[in-house]
Order: sequence, then structure tokens, then C-alpha cells
Amino acid sequence: MSEIKKGVQILDCTLRDGGYYTNWDFDKQLVQAYLNACNKLPIDWIEIGYRSPAKESYLGQYFYLPEYLIRDTKSRTTKKIALILNEKDIDPQTVRALLGDCIGHVDMIRMAVNPIRMDQAIELAKRVKEMGFLVAFNVMYMSTWDQIEGFYEKLSQLNGLIDYFYLVDSYGGVYPAEVTKAVEKVRSKLDVSIGFHGHNNLELGLINTLTAIEAGADVVDATFTGMGRGAGNLKTELLLTSLSSRHGLSVDFNALGNVVGAFERLQKEYGWGTNLPYMVSGANSLPQKEVMEWVTKRFYSVNSIIQALNNQSEGIEDN
Amino acid sequence: MSEIKKGVQILDCTLRDGGYYTNWDFDKQLVQAYLNACNKLPIDWIEIGYRSPAKESYLGQYFYLPEYLIRDTKSRTTKKIALILNEKDIDPQTVRALLGDCIGHVDMIRMAVNPIRMDQAIELAKRVKEMGFLVAFNVMYMSTWDQIEGFYEKLSQLNGLIDYFYLVDSYGGVYPAEVTKAVEKVRSKLDVSIGFHGHNNLELGLINTLTAIEAGADVVDATFTGMGRGAGNLKTELLLTSLSSRHGLSVDFNALGNVVGAFERLQKEYGWGTNLPYMVSGANSLPQKEVMEWVTKRFYSVNSIIQALNNQSEGIEDN
Repeated sequence: MSEIKKGVQILDCTLRDGGYYTNWDFDKQLVQAYLNACNKLPIDWIEIGYRSPAKESYLGQYFYLPEYLIRDTKSRTTKKIALILNEKDIDPQTVRALLGDCIGHVDMIRMAVNPIRMDQAIELAKRVKEMGFLVAFNVMYMSTWDQIEGFYEKLSQLNGLIDYFYLVDSYGGVYPAEVTKAVEKVRSKLDVSIGFHGHNNLELGLINTLTAIEAGADVVDATFTGMGRGAGNLKTELLLTSLSSRHGLSVDFNALGNVVGAFERLQKEYGWGTNLPYMVSGANSLPQKEVMEWVTKRFYSVNSIIQALNNQSEGIEDN
Repeated sequence: MSEIKKGVQILDCTLRDGGYYTNWDFDKQLVQAYLNACNKLPIDWIEIGYRSPAKESYLGQYFYLPEYLIRDTKSRTTKKIALILNEKDIDPQTVRALLGDCIGHVDMIRMAVNPIRMDQAIELAKRVKEMGFLVAFNVMYMSTWDQIEGFYEKLSQLNGLIDYFYLVDSYGGVYPAEVTKAVEKVRSKLDVSIGFHGHNNLELGLINTLTAIEAGADVVDATFTGMGRGAGNLKTELLLTSLSSRHGLSVDFNALGNVVGAFERLQKEYGWGTNLPYMVSGANSLPQKEVMEWVTKRFYSVNSIIQALNNQSEGIEDN
């Protein structure tokens, strides 16, 4: 780790990824504690939620980020602000209407991109870029990219268009050696900043992220207590503690302890973090969205979930 | 990971390391569930506790392992049995009396060895070896070995004496590259089987263990749900899931799910696992025994613990 790059940026996406547990509702005091702590910590970016067209089912305000909420957040943070779009949900024709009121308040628009929808994502990115935002592609399912014909060839089209290309370990099943290879492969095609977004199913969030930094990543994601979909993310406190002890990053541990304590109280209620079903889904590149539903509803025993996952992995249909 | 060694052995030490939380008392039904599951899982060894001279404060039966308990356990397991001694607590003169009734029931005696007490440990090992046991050294504080004068030179004295030499990441602060170096360095001095025992303060238990295996380790330790002192150990279920998906290790996930569920219920009560204070102690190679006392007693806020840890790390005395 001695050759870790100076100036690597940290993006905290607790409110965005944590929303999978709270339905994107967050208590005001918790958000204030979060923003206060971030202001005192060596975090460069905060991603505060989604911008989305209206959905049929109920979703809280951090899934839509109304203008007043963004303005209010911006007035209370010293950090750069990002929000994310689900590319597949957005008609490029509507993007000016969707994002117009973010201009001047939001620094970067990230797009969650399915790697088989790169063409559509490029069209959307052009419109977003024209509006003056920094643009990031968060390209999902990195463990599958080698199997997608023409995926890496297409990357050169992103040069001059996007600002950040994120490798997303959606299943939480990627190992450090694979991170290195993927970063190098992307870097060979693409001359934009590279990011890494890891999940923690196999407790590889920290080592994969440190490995991505060593391999040349410019920005990495984390969330406090790892709050995030399914098994969750790399823990911001773990990344900061590691970078503090090994690379002299200056960390205010009082501020860090306060915000971690606040999210730990929420964690007691929702219980994110890895467990055996999430380990099995990560290890076998199976969607943790389904596992999350099974685990949350508690209709199923751990055994039946694992059995179902293994059946999927062997190509046997669930019953 | 493609070159992982065939035939690497797995030692589960849930009862031994988990005893730090339960004072070495375990419910009979839980132990039965544990033994049943182990019998169905690709685990080679179970370490079931300590053998110790009487201590002043109360400690449960898995800290003393009376003969009837070992016999009873042996009758219910198909696995090889290990127990561990704290080298510093044992007078070599008394070891025949201490271990005599283990002959025929226990396969391996492990010794927890402080690396500055190698001479005393060698004396004790000679007596234990004469009794016919396999002998393992669990040498603690591997992050400090480079600073101990003559440590590596002494290792050659262990050839022909001990059967297993374990590298123990006592602080949970070692990174994979350091594991590789240490395993290679030990291997260059010593012609015995090598083991690795990791802690999970920085969530590096899995990757450090896989790295140790790649570097040539013959046996590795884990505990169900990571139950163990402080931040705990590599989780047995995580190791088995990883080896199952990447190396085709055959795992009965129903048996695994049952035993993990049983220990998860206990974890709700005791709350082992990493947290910010343990991360800080691991990252800075500070004794987690102290942190564990602070956290368990809850006399102190997280902030004051971290402040105290940082003061220790900077050589400032606590007040």
C-alpha cells in the first residue's frame, strides 16, 4: 500500500445507498448529524439520493430530491454534491425537465448503467453533459463484463463525454486480483477518471477498494456503517481508519464516532450487513435484490434461501 | 486464487475463541448443534477450549476442559480435536499432570506463544511432544516480529520439534502483502506445516487467510459468525462459501445455515464483530483486550475510547 496515490477522492453515498433500507426517508436530525460529520471529515463528495420520475409505490424524498431539499442540503454542506439516476428509468427527452432545477446546486450526475445498455446510456449522458454537470457512469455487474460482447470496445466512445467511469461490484463477489485486472482493462480503453464502488458480501469491500486505488482509481465510494442494499458497502469509517493509519490521512475520530453511532442505532432496527445468504449470493454472482427481499420478509428460512440460491447457481429453477 | 493448494486443512475454534464472550460456558444444545454441523462440513479440526491451571476468577468448563467433557465431545465428533494452552501460564514441570488425561482423546496441543518467550515455549513444547501429541505454536503479534531481535533466527530450533507453526494476527491489523511476506519468511527458516489465524478488525480475515493459503499455509482457523475475542475471527461460513464457489469445496449449506443461525442468536446477546474502536485498535496494532473491556463495560463513549487509543498510538499516556 505504500504507493497509494495521493489525492484519491472519497465519495460517501450513505443517504443514497442506505435508502434501500429506509425507503429513502431519513430523520432530519440524522441527516444533520451526517452533514456535520462529513464537513469535518476528509470526504470529497456526498451523494444524497436519486432523482427519479414518479414511481407507483411509495418512495421517500431522498429518492426524488425535490429542489428545496437539495438547496437546503447544499446550504449545510461544504462538500461537493452528487445525485444518481437509474439510466433505464429515464427517457432522454425528459432529462432537461428532470434535472433543470439541479443546475447550480448539484456538481455531478451519476448514472447507474446496466452494461448491456451502454448505447442508451451514452445518449442520456450527452443530454446531461450539455446541461453542464460532471457526469459519472456507475457501470454495474463488473463480474459479467468479460462475457458481454463488445463491452470493452465501446468504452472509447466515452472519452470526452463522461468525467468518471465507475466499476461497480454489484454482487459483492469480486476479488482483489479481478479488481486490478478490470481497472487496468478500463484504463487501457478510456482516458477519464476511474471510480470503484464495492459491496461487502464477502467482506472484501476494504481490500477491493484499496486494490482499486493502487491500480489507479481516482475516486472510491463508501457508506457509514456500510449502510446499503443487501450486504451493504465498504464502511466509510473502515476506509478512513485504514487510510489514516497507513497513509497519514487526517481524520477527526470524534466526528467519525458521532456519525457512526447515529447510524449504528438505525442499523439495530434494519440490520444491514452481510450474512450467509448474502455471502452465497455474492460468491455466486446472484442478484442480492432477490436475497434482500427474501431475508427482509422472513418468509423463508436461511436454509431455503441458500437452497434456492444454489439451485439458481446450478441453473435449476426455483419452485 | 486459481493456484490454491489442494488439501489445505480448516480448523474451527469457535468454542475456544468464542469463550472470550461467554466466559467459556456454552449451552449443551448449542454445543450439540455445533458438533453435528461440523460433522457434516469440510472442517478438519475443532479446537474446543483451553486447558489451564486453576485461575482465581470464575471461568467456565471450556477453559479447563475436564476429562469427562473431552471424552464426551470426542464421542460426538468425527473431527480431530485440539486444545490450547497459554504458554505463559504453564510451568513445564506440571505439564504431565496437566495433560496426562488428554492422551488418547486429544490429537493436538496448541500453545499460545508470545514471540518474546520463544525459549520458554520451546522448553514447554519438548515436554508436550514427549507425551505423544501433535504440537502447534500459535505465535502471537505477527506484526511485531520484524522488530524482535533474533526472532526469525530462533525458528530453526523448532524443526523436528513442533508440527504446526501458526502466524497469529493478534491485532487484526495485518494486510495481505504482509501475510505473504511473513509466510515466506517463516517458510525459509522452518520445515513444518504453517498455519494462519486472522482477526477481523479491518474485515481482512478472509483475504488474509486466502492469501496465506496461496503463500503456502497448510491449515487456517475460523469461527462460526466470527465469534471470538474483540472484533472476532474470520467467519467459518465465509471461508467455506468462498472456497465452495471458487474451488469447488463441497459444503452442506443446510448444516452450515443451522449452526450459523444458532450462533447468530448468541451474537445478538453479546454483540461480537468489528466496530470503530476495534478498527482503530487493529489499524494501529493496539491490544484489543483493553478495547474489549472498554466496549463491554460501556463505561466509556466510543469517542473517548478512540481518543484513548489514538493517544496510545501517539505514545501519550491515558488519563
